[in-house]
Amino acid sequence: MPNDIRIIEVKRSIFDDNDKDAARLRAELKEKQVFLLNLMSSPGSGKTTTLLALARLLSGRIRMGVLEADIDASVDAEAMAAAGVKSIQIHTGGMCHLDADMTRQGLYEFGLDDAELVILENVGNLVCPAEFDTGAVKNMTILSVPEGDDKPLKYPLMYEKCDLLVINKMDVLPYFDFDLEKAAAYAKARNPHIEILPISAKTGEGMEALAEWILCQVASWREG
Amino acid sequence: MPNDIRIIEVKRSIFDDNDKDAARLRAELKEKQVFLLNLMSSPGSGKTTTLLALARLLSGRIRMGVLEADIDASVDAEAMAAAGVKSIQIHTGGMCHLDADMTRQGLYEFGLDDAELVILENVGNLVCPAEFDTGAVKNMTILSVPEGDDKPLKYPLMYEKCDLLVINKMDVLPYFDFDLEKAAAYAKARNPHIEILPISAKTGEGMEALAEWILCQVASWREG
Repeated sequence: MPNDIRIIEVKRSIFDDNDKDAARLRAELKEKQVFLLNLMSSPGSGKTTTLLALARLLSGRIRMGVLEADIDASVDAEAMAAAGVKSIQIHTGGMCHLDADMTRQGLYEFGLDDAELVILENVGNLVCPAEFDTGAVKNMTILSVPEGDDKPLKYPLMYEKCDLLVINKMDVLPYFDFDLEKAAAYAKARNPHIEILPISAKTGEGMEALAEWILCQVASWREG
Repeated sequence: MPNDIRIIEVKRSIFDDNDKDAARLRAELKEKQVFLLNLMSSPGSGKTTTLLALARLLSGRIRMGVLEADIDASVDAEAMAAAGVKSIQIHTGGMCHLDADMTRQGLYEFGLDDAELVILENVGNLVCPAEFDTGAVKNMTILSVPEGDDKPLKYPLMYEKCDLLVINKMDVLPYFDFDLEKAAAYAKARNPHIEILPISAKTGEGMEALAEWILCQVASWREG
């Protein structure tokens, strides 16, 4: 393993009330002017590839870092390090989600003095991560075309909690029975305020729009 | 919703020791000569499509039924009913897995007198379901090509627990950076006894081999 990957084994939260703790973390981050974006999806939806493409597009426009959360692997942090993206690997020790205190442990180990935008790549899972407020300002979920357009029907809480639904792997749309309009309608039925953005992290389609969405969220949060 | 879909809202287990309860359920099922197969995967790997294809192939060869576990949706049981497959929908009430007692509640509601093979379609999730013995004789995990070949590195327990790894969506292999040999090597590093079977539930590739694998497991279990 390369020397420049830092790994933190987070401890189970000591706080009973995660919602209160998440609000506290949001206030701490606001004071430090660090925008935290929580990225969730199924395993294999393309979270890491999307973050690598975003890091290239946002380079020179905002200082971006990544918290990689995994059960006990470090392949994603290795990919970030290889691409020169500042990141830290969080090991959840078997847990299927991160709560606010686990996120805080990762953020402080990562170091906040130098960051403007930190994206948390949550554990690949459509159930548990949606149940825990991480302290993020916004939640973004990736649904990839091969997973099927019915996912918002089956994992309702994930879609209720997310601000932006990114539909990834649009480059393989011709090979799958995926109806973009259906997926959008199912997601909006769960959450009328959800924004939807089709992309392909592989070909770059829609990636500039995603970068703009993030920059716009950061700008309006700083003003708010 | 069609009238012929039965839904059961399972209750949280009253047993402290799930491993003991799972062994008890396995013994009950052995006595009734019902083979329980636990099917796990990420959301959107093709569990339901694989089960529909299996039901067609196994028709007349073994009496097969399906337990569909979901947070609170019923689309999978609707698909089974439309195809004439005997099934029941289990709602976990937000829980990310089934334990042995929840599985038992589903099985007894399903009815065991008429079944020889029951396949449990577990909640789409690579973390939590691997932590709970459901009482099944064998565990089968689907990894689909679009998810990437690195999943065994990131979700180790799932691969340790599974007897058969089915690699689905082989029909779209040309459109993804998926290395079948790498996936197999990563899985075998976690579990040297794992069997691996590439299929496409959509085109039928490998499906007869999967049907044969199941029939062979049932036959040797009956003799054992």
